[in-house]
Amino acid sequence: MKAEIISIGTELLLGEITDTNAPYLASQLPPLGIDLYWISTVGDNLERLPEVLRRAWERCDIILTTGGLGPTEADITRQAIAMLVGEEMKLDAVLEGEVRELFARRGITMPLSNLKQAVLIPSARALHNMQGTAPGWWVEKAGRVLVAMPGPPYEMKRMWEDEVLPMLQERAGAAIIFSRTLKTLGLAEAVMNERLKTHLQAANPTLGIYVRTDGIHLRITAKAETKAEAHELVARREMEVRQAIGDDYIWGLDSETLPGLVGRLLVSRSLTLATMESCTGGLLASTITDTPGSSSYFKGGVVSYAAEAKAIAGVDRQLLERFGTVSPETADALAQAVRSLMKADIGVGITGVAGPTSIEDKPVGTVYIAIAGPKPRMFYHCLPGNREQVKHRATVAALNELRKALLEETAY
Amino acid sequence: MKAEIISIGTELLLGEITDTNAPYLASQLPPLGIDLYWISTVGDNLERLPEVLRRAWERCDIILTTGGLGPTEADITRQAIAMLVGEEMKLDAVLEGEVRELFARRGITMPLSNLKQAVLIPSARALHNMQGTAPGWWVEKAGRVLVAMPGPPYEMKRMWEDEVLPMLQERAGAAIIFSRTLKTLGLAEAVMNERLKTHLQAANPTLGIYVRTDGIHLRITAKAETKAEAHELVARREMEVRQAIGDDYIWGLDSETLPGLVGRLLVSRSLTLATMESCTGGLLASTITDTPGSSSYFKGGVVSYAAEAKAIAGVDRQLLERFGTVSPETADALAQAVRSLMKADIGVGITGVAGPTSIEDKPVGTVYIAIAGPKPRMFYHCLPGNREQVKHRATVAALNELRKALLEETAY
Repeated sequence: MKAEIISIGTELLLGEITDTNAPYLASQLPPLGIDLYWISTVGDNLERLPEVLRRAWERCDIILTTGGLGPTEADITRQAIAMLVGEEMKLDAVLEGEVRELFARRGITMPLSNLKQAVLIPSARALHNMQGTAPGWWVEKAGRVLVAMPGPPYEMKRMWEDEVLPMLQERAGAAIIFSRTLKTLGLAEAVMNERLKTHLQAANPTLGIYVRTDGIHLRITAKAETKAEAHELVARREMEVRQAIGDDYIWGLDSETLPGLVGRLLVSRSLTLATMESCTGGLLASTITDTPGSSSYFKGGVVSYAAEAKAIAGVDRQLLERFGTVSPETADALAQAVRSLMKADIGVGITGVAGPTSIEDKPVGTVYIAIAGPKPRMFYHCLPGNREQVKHRATVAALNELRKALLEETAY
Repeated sequence: MKAEIISIGTELLLGEITDTNAPYLASQLPPLGIDLYWISTVGDNLERLPEVLRRAWERCDIILTTGGLGPTEADITRQAIAMLVGEEMKLDAVLEGEVRELFARRGITMPLSNLKQAVLIPSARALHNMQGTAPGWWVEKAGRVLVAMPGPPYEMKRMWEDEVLPMLQERAGAAIIFSRTLKTLGLAEAVMNERLKTHLQAANPTLGIYVRTDGIHLRITAKAETKAEAHELVARREMEVRQAIGDDYIWGLDSETLPGLVGRLLVSRSLTLATMESCTGGLLASTITDTPGSSSYFKGGVVSYAAEAKAIAGVDRQLLERFGTVSPETADALAQAVRSLMKADIGVGITGVAGPTSIEDKPVGTVYIAIAGPKPRMFYHCLPGNREQVKHRATVAALNELRKALLEETAY
């Protein structure tokens, strides 16, 4: 099945916002056996939008649109679709009731323009919008499917997950579609591509490679008649993928995150954590506290940017002078000092050179990570990128080392 | 002049990466008087790419492509352009020399496939790539311009700024194009749109609204025969815009950032800073240290997640018990404690509820920001969004309050 995504909105053509809907939807289609050949972006224009829709209608089986379903005059997606299929829009009593109720519940008088969102054409059925006032449209005609979804990403995503995806899965012909994501760190994309070459070309299960900020994600997706069969297909491919790239590079599965995993390991071992950061400047603490509930295991952190701040937090001044700010000895001293200061079970210390200039003759990207606990650990990394990238990569590396330490160490 | 952007790459159709090139280029075109009507995304496919190029060639004056200029077999953009204009590609001696020299300098043997990047067609001139091996193409034929740029954003951006933009400015007909960006915080987009309605419709200078993570940016761009005239046009519109929205909402200009401005103000007043954060969990310290050179004014920070950590950092336990963690009194105590602990001139304290659950009956989004210094200041914010958004918005708010305090206070 051939597909096209059409992102609608003049603001996209002015570069005012970045289109994140299209890449999200694009990543959802391969498991459905749908081949996305085109993404088109067009403004809220009654000449060009129908033209773009017509071309998609001619060359595709499935069209996904986002945007242009709002109540303003600029929102013309419904009108353009009605023109495309040659049908007339009519106010739908059920939809009208729902829109009116929504406003009544919020205690706001409904502007008349919102009635625009309560129309349908004979070939369309409404898709429920759990996050906003604009219902979507599922249009089926002449062997084609056109799905119109709202532009705000959280509205679109919810509608996709709740309503569109299940219907498309049904059409995909297989009873069951099952996916598993392996999250990796440490292997370059080119090496990954090389090692997984044959699997990347396979049709069922499919394998997708996604470069993300916390490493490279590998998604295995199988289609089958039964749940057991789909799980079996994925499990077998997962084993092959693990063998091909090496188990050590895989840090998590599916929706797991590094700070989330570290948090879970800490909770399950009844351990507490504290951090002292130099080059990452607080990003490690901030990332740890992105996880709800982190207050139960994260005692706190020190951002010891100045040498003085390190001394105040309990680091020996003579050690700092002797080994320098950027050294394994100092990383270790930071970890130990904050562990004892915050009365935590585990202390993490990071020092390094975020850039743009080198420090104490150490090149940009040099990072030392120390973990203080029952068994002290020390890691050296040489990270690529600019200041912000080095900070981010050092934070990800520290969380991953911490995860491995918590897993391996029976002493914890 | 009508334009189309074509983003080329199968990885875009698989959702493996998000296209940031198209929105960047889109935001660059309005000041040039170029109307962007379409953005098309297509894979590295020798059937569909020429088809998309042909349609763009028929309906546009200017076509900007990104991607597909690499040395692999999948990179077919040059070939597709040659097919489009019906010309033959030939190895260019100058380009070949440059590519060979690049590899020689890196001490690597050049793979034969890289010769692919040294070809030209009669209608194309090469665009220099300062960041990689793939030169771009500037193709001019039959009254149309087609610019082919590489896909990696940093390569594309540099080529755009150094080579493409100046040539397009020349073609734009006006001798001088001048832009000024006003960065704002605190006014909603809808209100902004309402207050600036007439200016948004004006042709010269144009006004663009861009929603960014540090507020809403307003870009005024004028075209004129002389530099003085362009500056004059922008200055006049800037005054009108400032009157329309209120000066207080504008925190910076052009490439200024909030942490950069705060840093500059601290340096110019020879003041140092320290932070103690509860709900932002280190994000404020991390954002401050994103600015190179911040070590000269940022002494350090404490992330006092646990109540115990607050006490360790010098906050009175009785005060915490009496007023609770989320209170103006505690924010003030954090600011004062870290100011004295780190021996800084100014201390900033933040406490609040990042979510997802409320604390001490305070709703999610409640944030208290205190600034301790010659004159103590206290701010209450009620911020929308999820946990990460509240953290981010609280950080931006704290930096903005700090900026205003530093500006207003003659005592500093």
